[in-house]
Amino acid sequence: MAETEIRDRHRLVVVGGGFGGLQCVKSLRGAGLDITLIDRRNHHLFQPLLYQAATTILSPAEIAWPLRQMLRGREDVTTLMAEVSDVDVTVREIVLTDGARLGYDSLVLATGARHSYFGNDTWADHAPGLKTLEDATRIRRMILTAFERAERLPEGEARRAALTFAVIGAGPTGAELVGIIAELAHRILPRDFRRIDTRDARVMLIEAGDRVLSAFPDTLSDYAAGALAAQGVELRTGMAVTAIDETGITIGAERIACDTVLWAAGVQASRAGGWLGAEVDRAGRVHVAPDLSVPGHPEVFVIGDTAAVSDAAGTPVPGIAPAAKQMGAHVAKILQARLRGNDAPDPFRYAHAGSLATLGRSAAIADFGRLHLRGALAWWVWGIAHIFFLIGNRSRISVALSWLWSYAIRKNAARLITRPDR
Amino acid sequence: MAETEIRDRHRLVVVGGGFGGLQCVKSLRGAGLDITLIDRRNHHLFQPLLYQAATTILSPAEIAWPLRQMLRGREDVTTLMAEVSDVDVTVREIVLTDGARLGYDSLVLATGARHSYFGNDTWADHAPGLKTLEDATRIRRMILTAFERAERLPEGEARRAALTFAVIGAGPTGAELVGIIAELAHRILPRDFRRIDTRDARVMLIEAGDRVLSAFPDTLSDYAAGALAAQGVELRTGMAVTAIDETGITIGAERIACDTVLWAAGVQASRAGGWLGAEVDRAGRVHVAPDLSVPGHPEVFVIGDTAAVSDAAGTPVPGIAPAAKQMGAHVAKILQARLRGNDAPDPFRYAHAGSLATLGRSAAIADFGRLHLRGALAWWVWGIAHIFFLIGNRSRISVALSWLWSYAIRKNAARLITRPDR
Repeated sequence: MAETEIRDRHRLVVVGGGFGGLQCVKSLRGAGLDITLIDRRNHHLFQPLLYQAATTILSPAEIAWPLRQMLRGREDVTTLMAEVSDVDVTVREIVLTDGARLGYDSLVLATGARHSYFGNDTWADHAPGLKTLEDATRIRRMILTAFERAERLPEGEARRAALTFAVIGAGPTGAELVGIIAELAHRILPRDFRRIDTRDARVMLIEAGDRVLSAFPDTLSDYAAGALAAQGVELRTGMAVTAIDETGITIGAERIACDTVLWAAGVQASRAGGWLGAEVDRAGRVHVAPDLSVPGHPEVFVIGDTAAVSDAAGTPVPGIAPAAKQMGAHVAKILQARLRGNDAPDPFRYAHAGSLATLGRSAAIADFGRLHLRGALAWWVWGIAHIFFLIGNRSRISVALSWLWSYAIRKNAARLITRPDR
Repeated sequence: MAETEIRDRHRLVVVGGGFGGLQCVKSLRGAGLDITLIDRRNHHLFQPLLYQAATTILSPAEIAWPLRQMLRGREDVTTLMAEVSDVDVTVREIVLTDGARLGYDSLVLATGARHSYFGNDTWADHAPGLKTLEDATRIRRMILTAFERAERLPEGEARRAALTFAVIGAGPTGAELVGIIAELAHRILPRDFRRIDTRDARVMLIEAGDRVLSAFPDTLSDYAAGALAAQGVELRTGMAVTAIDETGITIGAERIACDTVLWAAGVQASRAGGWLGAEVDRAGRVHVAPDLSVPGHPEVFVIGDTAAVSDAAGTPVPGIAPAAKQMGAHVAKILQARLRGNDAPDPFRYAHAGSLATLGRSAAIADFGRLHLRGALAWWVWGIAHIFFLIGNRSRISVALSWLWSYAIRKNAARLITRPDR
């Protein structure tokens, strides 16, 4: 391809290689754009299974893939591992943390969300959330090290604190984490220890709202509460945590000594709204136009967890992978239409396929609108769906193998404790 | 079993869950001892494949297994994750870093070796060695990040430094590391990058001695040098490194700017000799009696990389996994004989099965005494042997799958860059 041709191509910069950004790039295959995909990580992460990497079932390499390897066949895409610090919409350039600038004709911001501790920032030190592979490795280390410490401690308060696990927030991530921690304590680890009985562990799920998995219909939510309780999870609904420090948590007037506290209660959008100077909601999400562009800047789009979008009925679009992918595909469609000279506005319409959540071993709930599933059947639907959505046959075989080992042979494959450098 | 019986059992403490310590514990199955295995890690590491975890082929979980899971069926073994800080041989107690003490009737120290920078301790910051999973993750991050940085840099010195890789020390680890780095640069990564040609990378192997893999016979060593050169590795033998800092290395009068320097040149025994106040050699290895016990302390044994042992011909026993395993089994045999009342000295005799080293894709050398193998056949022997020695079918299937992907499909599975916490 001649130099002039390359320069003439429409320059699209996509920031963020999550579900939204990656789908946008994929949908533009063959569209003839000059695409640059920027992510501060070198990998796309399959976040729906991240909790399994945090809880000894899967390894990081089974749920994350290098972006540049995924896009190696796409000569129209340049992948850069870099961190964006600002966007200069007037001159149409993004600014990287090292000061470098990159011009664009169109820009897609798909920078996701991070944890929110509702202003209690010190809680982050004691109660990690789960967004990255490093978070998963840290949480795995915390859980396994707590059992190791308990094995070395004499009977007493310190040992009880080591064997107390509190998960804050009973959305899908919290319910999924707590289900596997209970399974570890009650079914997988007991035979490995000599001085402690890991079945003595106290595994708590704490939720400020009045029920678990409140995005699901009441009947499924009730089933989930029962399934978790049957696995030995202690549920505390309608109770907000008021303090978290290195020795434990406070719920209302009650103090609970516990070494392991995990945060699954709140998320906050990325800083993209600030870069744009755009109007954002309380969670920092950008109020986008119906076509997902930023008001006043039709060449800039915000998608995924950083965008505040509602469906036709006015219900907010949930922060889940299928929604982000639909938004990425929608923006790709708009960009292709514009290249053909069609600037007519095309509003995004979200199609909700269903919601799924697992609850430890062989239990799950699924809400497909009129069809509700629960129990083992929902668990199989969930497992097959997730194997299908994994990227690459290597990952599919490997995850299937890991699940087989975990669920049939009860030997979780990913129980390594690794420590941070230095 | 009654309380009195438990108290009466001979208390064996094994420090270190590497090849030597673990083999000692395994060989004592059914011997009726009260065994405590202590390691500061929660896992046994298959070090012969660690370089593959450092170079994107394997994942940590494929080459390491939790010690307590491996020993879950052994009711006579208590596993503790703890760090030993001293041994009090007069009262027969080991001291942990948290101050706790643990009494023993017999003690086996199998605490291995760490890197030695020959007194240049600042080199450690710039040139990591490869002993732990964290080292492997760090080296993988360094290698992949260098290519990522090069893709963002303009042509010039900084980009050339990012694309220069130096491995110091041409023993098996150095040769194996450099072979895969060359393969990454020349065969696996080129199609993934748009702005750089990864084949421009300079991959150097620097050795102070006069040939690579000097523990092998001359003919195999010469073959290895040729095989590495054919893969694009630049060999520098007979040249000692005189400086390593953050901008590069100095070899004699030559300064080479390079971002990635890996250390495979020297090892130093663990501190066990100091705990015992025993006589040690220059590398810190304890001069043990012919039966591997510590002179003056027949109840204390030192095995593996921390022991200085020679074979019948006076040749030093090499620091490799089979040697450590043989020592572990030997000590187990002595302990069982003593329990039967037989205190006759039983000298350790090392049986060398052979030496193997790989040199990147489809090339390896093997020295089985009279039989020398090289090339593809040696590579297959090496691969099958290593699959066989891996622990657990999950690992065997998974490693076979990873190798299939790497060697046949040329998509290395473990190319994630993960960062340390905070």
